Amino acid sequence: MKINGIVAATFAAYQADGSLNLAIIPQLVDKLVADGVAGVYICGTNGEGPNMTVEERMAIAEAYVKAANKRILVLVHVGHTSIKECKKLAAHAAQIGADAFSSVAAFYFKPTSVQNLVDCMAEIASAAPELPFYYYHMPTLTGVGMDMVEFLSIGEQKIPNLAGIKYTASTLHEFQACLNYKDGEFEVLSGYDEMLLSALAVGAVGAIGSTYTFAAPVYLEIIKLFRNNDLTAARALQLKVVDFIRCIIKHPSIAAQRAIMKMMGYDLGDARLPLVPLSSDKFIELKADLTKTGFFELLEKYR
Amino acid sequence: MKINGIVAATFAAYQADGSLNLAIIPQLVDKLVADGVAGVYICGTNGEGPNMTVEERMAIAEAYVKAANKRILVLVHVGHTSIKECKKLAAHAAQIGADAFSSVAAFYFKPTSVQNLVDCMAEIASAAPELPFYYYHMPTLTGVGMDMVEFLSIGEQKIPNLAGIKYTASTLHEFQACLNYKDGEFEVLSGYDEMLLSALAVGAVGAIGSTYTFAAPVYLEIIKLFRNNDLTAARALQLKVVDFIRCIIKHPSIAAQRAIMKMMGYDLGDARLPLVPLSSDKFIELKADLTKTGFFELLEKYR
Amino acid sequence: MKINGIVAATFAAYQADGSLNLAIIPQLVDKLVADGVAGVYICGTNGEGPNMTVEERMAIAEAYVKAANKRILVLVHVGHTSIKECKKLAAHAAQIGADAFSSVAAFYFKPTSVQNLVDCMAEIASAAPELPFYYYHMPTLTGVGMDMVEFLSIGEQKIPNLAGIKYTASTLHEFQACLNYKDGEFEVLSGYDEMLLSALAVGAVGAIGSTYTFAAPVYLEIIKLFRNNDLTAARALQLKVVDFIRCIIKHPSIAAQRAIMKMMGYDLGDARLPLVPLSSDKFIELKADLTKTGFFELLEKYR
Amino acid sequence: MKINGIVAATFAAYQADGSLNLAIIPQLVDKLVADGVAGVYICGTNGEGPNMTVEERMAIAEAYVKAANKRILVLVHVGHTSIKECKKLAAHAAQIGADAFSSVAAFYFKPTSVQNLVDCMAEIASAAPELPFYYYHMPTLTGVGMDMVEFLSIGEQKIPNLAGIKYTASTLHEFQACLNYKDGEFEVLSGYDEMLLSALAVGAVGAIGSTYTFAAPVYLEIIKLFRNNDLTAARALQLKVVDFIRCIIKHPSIAAQRAIMKMMGYDLGDARLPLVPLSSDKFIELKADLTKTGFFELLEKYR
Repeated sequence: MKINGIVAATFAAYQADGSLNLAIIPQLVDKLVADGVAGVYICGTNGEGPNMTVEERMAIAEAYVKAANKRILVLVHVGHTSIKECKKLAAHAAQIGADAFSSVAAFYFKPTSVQNLVDCMAEIASAAPELPFYYYHMPTLTGVGMDMVEFLSIGEQKIPNLAGIKYTASTLHEFQACLNYKDGEFEVLSGYDEMLLSALAVGAVGAIGSTYTFAAPVYLEIIKLFRNNDLTAARALQLKVVDFIRCIIKHPSIAAQRAIMKMMGYDLGDARLPLVPLSSDKFIELKADLTKTGFFELLEKYR
Repeated sequence: MKINGIVAATFAAYQADGSLNLAIIPQLVDKLVADGVAGVYICGTNGEGPNMTVEERMAIAEAYVKAANKRILVLVHVGHTSIKECKKLAAHAAQIGADAFSSVAAFYFKPTSVQNLVDCMAEIASAAPELPFYYYHMPTLTGVGMDMVEFLSIGEQKIPNLAGIKYTASTLHEFQACLNYKDGEFEVLSGYDEMLLSALAVGAVGAIGSTYTFAAPVYLEIIKLFRNNDLTAARALQLKVVDFIRCIIKHPSIAAQRAIMKMMGYDLGDARLPLVPLSSDKFIELKADLTKTGFFELLEKYR
Repeated sequence: MKINGIVAATFAAYQADGSLNLAIIPQLVDKLVADGVAGVYICGTNGEGPNMTVEERMAIAEAYVKAANKRILVLVHVGHTSIKECKKLAAHAAQIGADAFSSVAAFYFKPTSVQNLVDCMAEIASAAPELPFYYYHMPTLTGVGMDMVEFLSIGEQKIPNLAGIKYTASTLHEFQACLNYKDGEFEVLSGYDEMLLSALAVGAVGAIGSTYTFAAPVYLEIIKLFRNNDLTAARALQLKVVDFIRCIIKHPSIAAQRAIMKMMGYDLGDARLPLVPLSSDKFIELKADLTKTGFFELLEKYR
Repeated sequence: MKINGIVAATFAAYQADGSLNLAIIPQLVDKLVADGVAGVYICGTNGEGPNMTVEERMAIAEAYVKAANKRILVLVHVGHTSIKECKKLAAHAAQIGADAFSSVAAFYFKPTSVQNLVDCMAEIASAAPELPFYYYHMPTLTGVGMDMVEFLSIGEQKIPNLAGIKYTASTLHEFQACLNYKDGEFEVLSGYDEMLLSALAVGAVGAIGSTYTFAAPVYLEIIKLFRNNDLTAARALQLKVVDFIRCIIKHPSIAAQRAIMKMMGYDLGDARLPLVPLSSDKFIELKADLTKTGFFELLEKYR
């Protein structure tokens, strides 16, 4: 498995009473297929995996695998404070036919060394030995910021199904070093949408991010321009992305992105506590800001 | 419910294969009853709640409630990244006859304001409305360091069963302010064993801590000396506590304390990843250090 | 030199044009002598040493030494990013007849080990070998949080004039361990005014803090009550201190304390950038809050 | 002034007794001129400005201005905890004919808002109103991580001589937004050598960094390849840079870079405390690592 292109880190969907809205998943997946994404990454940070029960996470995974129906990849995030729960989720992912799985580092008790981190991931990965496993590196959220080259070096010996890293950090020099570890033995997926072009410049082939859920065609155009060697146009388009992401990060990021989904006709309900939705004032402010940056025109243009 | 005295934040117990060792719990509880503790706090940080599945946490709670058999209080920690799982655990605690429950703040997505934190805790507390609820304040581990007086002030309006705070922070001025909020409306339990005397000096009545699992009689003597107004002797004994805790914190703290339990005849097995047990070298070093500080004599003397 | 009682960490004083107001120093010192303090700690954090030029710091030191005229101790803070500047300040302090000197850890490049920290302090301390030297431990501000017992242990071999530590951290167990290092070889001065009683409980004899500049008599009463074994009254008075400090920390702390000095008739001018004074609204709010807690009555009562 | 190309953030030079080695500066400048750099940035982080006295910093600035003799630009870092000292250094830089000056945020007391940061920088910049001023953004070291677009927006109104930002952070999306603020009104200099290609991809024109002191020709080749649209070759060369920087960051970074200078024939003496030089073992290890990555051949090839 080599992921080429972009994978949408999708958002959780709830009904008005707070229970899961599984019914919206097929519709969301059809949109993403039409948008040209290579896959979906589910129950991650934006997918609010940690806000859900194990049973809910399984139900979501089943709904996505069914809706995708092999048209796009389904990557299931199984991260949890309890490795035992991670393993349940991993085994379930394999059983229902997901394409790959992934986990963040433990985040209550935190790994204290790369070796310790690898030991944790090896334990999790062993629960679905046939599926490719991606470590989800996200130091700003988990507080676990280990050397990722060293992780690959120890990990390749201990995790037979290690496929690579979902690399959500802005340190692109380390990202480039990982990409080139043993001439590219592992996939290193760029996790910073707002820095996609910079990641492409140092060799990124695949990327996973939340904004690909609503703006995939724009990013695919950046990739196309980049591959056609039209860096000037790619840079101009990346700047537009930076502009709209700056509108988003004025607000709590997940709430703002869920608001955008709503603006686009996908009502995903309210995120779960401790997350809170944008107030209606902030919703209107965000919409106005996005309009001013030309965000909606941009989406229209590349659809 | 007013907790007077000390509550042992007990450790997880595993068998050699990594599964729960429930069989050891009655023996542990009998020891703690004999030691004179007022209660046990289970599935917290030292109890590795976050390392376990929901089912395991329930099994442990049942075992403790049964073993305690109303001789001492059982406080169940229900903290989890998913509030829905917290509520399951809370409802279960009420149903099996636990005396109280408690939760840390969410720690993947973190509350962003006191109001947000209270909203989370209110949601959790509502799942067992007849049981007293204690917020577990532990900023160094969770990264959530809100103003606790403000928490009580907002919390008393939103959490009908709010009983108080398990206050695991060294900021005793805020601790004292909480203790005196509305002339002592809430219980504020001291969570820093190594600062117990300082907490008593500003008015602490109850305390919860991990070292009370193996050294309760020493601490009870400190409390007795303090209450008898013999501050000089209390201080000398507290210094001995500081000395042995300094031996512990040379190592990862949970591993070292589990090692001490083993030295005392309680084999709790290996903590779960990402935690790791002390190496045998470190085990020997710790034992020698403790011996040198007079730790074992101290235990003997006050038993 | 053994400091018994409290040392006021005084504030910087400026004229309307931003230059130093040396003229106010004798008046301030006379007040502090009347208040019963054991000494002053100058050019520290509250004294804005880092906001001043080396020449200004020397001028302030001279003014304090002259004004004190041996009635109270003068401790000069010489901390600076450049050890060479520290040494200039230290030599100057010795030359003008200061009683002791002190330094924070370097805070641009930060020491990476206790040994490294001791090496820095040894270099600084060597510039005034006859004067007692106190390391100023303040991890929350400098980001340097080493083990202070280890500091004493290495420091006693490398810093012949090491007198002790100005310990500005809430970790009173370590504070107690330092106090008892080699049966009390070093002075460990409590630096958390709002936790003074807790520090006394574990053996504190001396303390340095900013609020002693305006409320020394209240704290001296706490010490008196404590030494008379009237812990109940001491605790009640400490609670009043906590109450008024909670009013202060609603605002940037130095600005709020300078505002209090102004309320008491000492106009110290505006703190230097990046510090900013309280707005007049906040000034009024603080005054009202303090009045409500009974702060001014308290000052009146113990004066 | 528009900086095109790379500026070497040079290292401090000391004699065996720890005093400044000004004599080596002309030789170092001649080398850098031959290497093709656009300028030098002096007394910054790598230049150990904070480790020196004000007088020493002035002496260094004079030596560089004289040695450069208008062949390359001289940018003087004037950052200090005391704004008054900053202003002295700024006025001096202007007087001796430096080309520009720059400052980090205050780092003892830290700015609490963008407005506060701008106020500080405006005060500093006003001391040399004819010289271009660059804010030195380095959040990982100073702990001051404000929004840089907002800084430009407020700064352009308050700092008439604001020329731009030395942007030492890996967040290239913000870097790109700054570069494009008002269609490129300000210069935003890339400060992460190991991410130079990624910065070029989003539009970087100028860069300042420490490794340009010893490896400028390699980086200039990357820029040339990039501008010739040969991204594949540029990426391969950037990877070599990443490789040797990974050798450096196994060690304390400034010590390792000073060791490299020594390997290349420039003995700069020992960095000042709290910095410490590499041990001879580590020196040998670094040299071997660099040799293995082909670092010295690379330097040879592009010289």
